[in-house]
Amino acid sequence: MIGVALYGCGTVGSAVAEALATRADGFELRHVVVRDPHRLRTAAVPRALLRTDWRAPLADPGVQVVIEVMGGAEPAGSLIRGALRTGRQVVTANKALIAAAGAELEALAWARGAFLGYEAAVAGAIPVLDALRGPLAANRIRRVAGILNGTTNYILTRMEEDLLDLPAALRQAQELGFAEADPGADLSGRDAAQKLVILARHAFGRWLPLERVRCEGIEAVTGGDIDDALRAGERIRLVAEASLGDDDEVVLEVAPRALPAVHPLAAVRNETNAVAVEGDLCGVVVLAGPGAGGKATASAVYGDLLRAAGSRGRPLAPLRTRHPSPLSTGTDMLPSPIVISS
Amino acid sequence: MIGVALYGCGTVGSAVAEALATRADGFELRHVVVRDPHRLRTAAVPRALLRTDWRAPLADPGVQVVIEVMGGAEPAGSLIRGALRTGRQVVTANKALIAAAGAELEALAWARGAFLGYEAAVAGAIPVLDALRGPLAANRIRRVAGILNGTTNYILTRMEEDLLDLPAALRQAQELGFAEADPGADLSGRDAAQKLVILARHAFGRWLPLERVRCEGIEAVTGGDIDDALRAGERIRLVAEASLGDDDEVVLEVAPRALPAVHPLAAVRNETNAVAVEGDLCGVVVLAGPGAGGKATASAVYGDLLRAAGSRGRPLAPLRTRHPSPLSTGTDMLPSPIVISS
Repeated sequence: MIGVALYGCGTVGSAVAEALATRADGFELRHVVVRDPHRLRTAAVPRALLRTDWRAPLADPGVQVVIEVMGGAEPAGSLIRGALRTGRQVVTANKALIAAAGAELEALAWARGAFLGYEAAVAGAIPVLDALRGPLAANRIRRVAGILNGTTNYILTRMEEDLLDLPAALRQAQELGFAEADPGADLSGRDAAQKLVILARHAFGRWLPLERVRCEGIEAVTGGDIDDALRAGERIRLVAEASLGDDDEVVLEVAPRALPAVHPLAAVRNETNAVAVEGDLCGVVVLAGPGAGGKATASAVYGDLLRAAGSRGRPLAPLRTRHPSPLSTGTDMLPSPIVISS
Repeated sequence: MIGVALYGCGTVGSAVAEALATRADGFELRHVVVRDPHRLRTAAVPRALLRTDWRAPLADPGVQVVIEVMGGAEPAGSLIRGALRTGRQVVTANKALIAAAGAELEALAWARGAFLGYEAAVAGAIPVLDALRGPLAANRIRRVAGILNGTTNYILTRMEEDLLDLPAALRQAQELGFAEADPGADLSGRDAAQKLVILARHAFGRWLPLERVRCEGIEAVTGGDIDDALRAGERIRLVAEASLGDDDEVVLEVAPRALPAVHPLAAVRNETNAVAVEGDLCGVVVLAGPGAGGKATASAVYGDLLRAAGSRGRPLAPLRTRHPSPLSTGTDMLPSPIVISS
């Protein structure tokens, strides 16, 4: 069994705990660190595992992997550094921390022979960091461009389809849980900028400071702008883009753009995220899916966990036998075959 | 240096040879096996490397990796078995062979401690096998559904957008190089069925025989069917789908389907491929991109080559420094930022 400490048990942490409880992959959940033990949201965590002191799990030699999904700068930074220094594998979804301190944390992980995974920090369940580092690694990447913030994409879609103004669309997003009470980091583009810094690291091999992102949010987008775009056959999306300039310099930008309706990012609606990768061999490959939410983020966290445990990614390993699936209860993704007239 | 033997030097083989010649990843191309040495298509292969006897490279102890992109059952099957038996790593794009003999070849690779990669066999540059085995591995997959054949999707798109009948759209596809002289395997759905068998292996962990695929091609699709679909707000696509039935049985089907316009696969135009993966955690993740062509296939082959060489996928490895990109000469993927009125 591989001992796991989970930091944070909100929406994402609960989904991770539930995934751990329902998969038999050889992980043992030993500690769950929370701010308020009375606000536990899932039955998958026995109360006996709850801790409020973030240092306690690091004192347990049975902890081999640390999962950090509490967010914020501290104590996330301290506990991740502590875990890496003691050779623990670390999986985190903390985009703000990785965007700010990714270079330092990667160097620390490398020096201690530890794994540091943060696929969940960018675009939720969409495996874009893995794709850039792995199957697309042969490519000279020219550009990565994405819709990396579900809140603003939801707002822009509602403004477009329901003719709402920005405050009304924001209220709707908040009521449905697609926007936080304080939406500042989303609306200003700062959240997308943090993800873009991480994406650029995987596309171009360099950590660039957040200040290098030319960042413009959607605060000033009006219904009139959206109307004008629609009349021109375009849709306004908040696009985060990292591209290689003529002088081999990486240009980082987050800004609302009017995209032609046939552009692969124009069709991305509501809270969905998407990333287009442009490489010299692969052409344009587009990855789309849920960019946030407990389960979608847990999908990426758990994928990194399997990598940390060495049970995926090894060249010679046979495929894992898949988890048997319960009866499908989701919406039917496809209608029945059509009858073709003869 | 890692010694490489390349089997096949047509469109895909030439692109692989060119990628090897322009990247300094420590690979040494030692043999290029071709049927006709007078029909060499690329300057990246020195004539001195050409062989017509497929056994010759396997007698060279300096060959550590074998890349097979010649296609067909033989000698591809024999050379891959020969390479795996002698512990060589193998990378192939041969969908027909893997669909028919994947179980046997994987077992052989595993027994000999060799790597067998075939990401290029399904959906070209789209890293869907890697995604299923890697970052999405935590998911209980309910369904994978894709547009896996670029020829038929091109034909259906032209019928839809240019009001062509099937023979005219096929002729256009052939003139543009999107369809072969003998399009039987594409039109009948057989090509998509082979890819579906491989996709199902990665989604559900089982090799199923090609005969298990209920396969219906597009031969009977008429302009009238397409008109009817458009009037109903739908688009006809040749959909390859593997889903988990109530009894935990995998159902495989290739058939033309009328998809609602908002369906993620309905927007996939021309020769583009796409795969939608439905998992219990990730929701629906869609991957789209070029499904064929020399460079796109070489992207996947080279990605597997890097994995075979152990230079990607290891948990602890730092990111590779990216190849410097030449000046971008491609089409501009995104327009300039719009000016937002205040």
